[in-house]
Amino acid sequence: MNNYKMLITYDGSRYLGWQKLGKGELTIQGVIEDILKELLGKKIEIHGSGRTDAGVHARAQVANFKSSQLLGKEFQLAMNEKLPEDIRVIGFEKISGEFHSRYSAKAKVYQYYVDTNEKANVFMRRYTCQYPKELSLEQMKQAATYLCGTHDFTSFTDDKSEKDKVRTIFEIQIARERGIICFTYYGDGFLQHMIRILTGTLLEVGTGEKSPEDILQILERRKRAEAGFMVPAKGLFLDKVEY
Amino acid sequence: MNNYKMLITYDGSRYLGWQKLGKGELTIQGVIEDILKELLGKKIEIHGSGRTDAGVHARAQVANFKSSQLLGKEFQLAMNEKLPEDIRVIGFEKISGEFHSRYSAKAKVYQYYVDTNEKANVFMRRYTCQYPKELSLEQMKQAATYLCGTHDFTSFTDDKSEKDKVRTIFEIQIARERGIICFTYYGDGFLQHMIRILTGTLLEVGTGEKSPEDILQILERRKRAEAGFMVPAKGLFLDKVEY
Repeated sequence: MNNYKMLITYDGSRYLGWQKLGKGELTIQGVIEDILKELLGKKIEIHGSGRTDAGVHARAQVANFKSSQLLGKEFQLAMNEKLPEDIRVIGFEKISGEFHSRYSAKAKVYQYYVDTNEKANVFMRRYTCQYPKELSLEQMKQAATYLCGTHDFTSFTDDKSEKDKVRTIFEIQIARERGIICFTYYGDGFLQHMIRILTGTLLEVGTGEKSPEDILQILERRKRAEAGFMVPAKGLFLDKVEY
Repeated sequence: MNNYKMLITYDGSRYLGWQKLGKGELTIQGVIEDILKELLGKKIEIHGSGRTDAGVHARAQVANFKSSQLLGKEFQLAMNEKLPEDIRVIGFEKISGEFHSRYSAKAKVYQYYVDTNEKANVFMRRYTCQYPKELSLEQMKQAATYLCGTHDFTSFTDDKSEKDKVRTIFEIQIARERGIICFTYYGDGFLQHMIRILTGTLLEVGTGEKSPEDILQILERRKRAEAGFMVPAKGLFLDKVEY
């Protein structure tokens, strides 16, 4: 069997997320598997690097699948002809048999965009969270230093099934350009809703509702209620998966 | 009667253009007039600075209307609460009675975005024309110099009703950032489809199909068939109207 690695970009606006659900439920995995079945004549299961929630976007999600057929660049083109315009395969290669998009992943980069401008930007409405408040970048950056490193992130997730809530964040960057703040999270893995709760909490530090040092206590108490609000899915992008 | 000037931004993707059409036809003017009627209790006609075609966007379209009622900032907020999320009133002021959005306009700025990247950017698909070719910025800039000034633009329009096809282009800027080329057109007014045909013609110069000097002949011959192709509406933005 050949193992194929795909790089996939998608606008998650109209999808119920990455993971395949029941019949009639629109998901990215579901749409891609339907097309693979059409092109390859049999049911193929693809493995994503991780789930993205309903409304979350990806610049370069990674997924792999196995097939006895020898496939190349022309197969990528054939897929893109069949895919809806909000999903595109932007990379396609044969890879070693051991490679697994999820288990082989070493690190991920996510980005979250917050539009702080007073004037509504209708062109960004699907890709940013609109939050027209005065925010202190300095305070948020200070708070981010407390989040970096290896911690139990129980306070920053809604995940009930995952037992191990310890993750490592290598770096958090916060940059502002034309009133749009981009939060970049680089870590070994993230729990369900983690980036969105981290961002909501940082925004509460930015407005002064919380102090940077509050982060220490939030981490320590391991209770979801301690952290800040969860920002909406639409501002979130899976940017990169490292192997 | 009071005269009110509005600044309006819209994502034109799902509209049949600015100008009101028949019942059931979705237009920006139609949507705004329906809301004004709802809020002011009577039929109000608004005057836009000009029509935008189906699928064309606006960062700051200008429109005015008259009303005996005294309206302020809270009226702008009330409108935005009723408007769909792809239309927003971003400016609202009482202005002198003589002001007319169309007849008082002195100049307009339009921008057109061409994505030349090989890799599809699904997030820009509604706002750019995808054209993954090698383009010479130098050649296009040279061609643009021949378009600037006062000319008869018969070759660059599909307008049959307008008799006077003489317009003045003050400046054309062409800039590339991360593979996306932005054409900025600044002029005293533009004919129907003019920006889109100008851009298609400049792209043909960029690929080498036409030479910069061909522009002189195209202008002189006054025939639509002489100019290049018309790029799609979705990459076009009305950026600014000057008074």
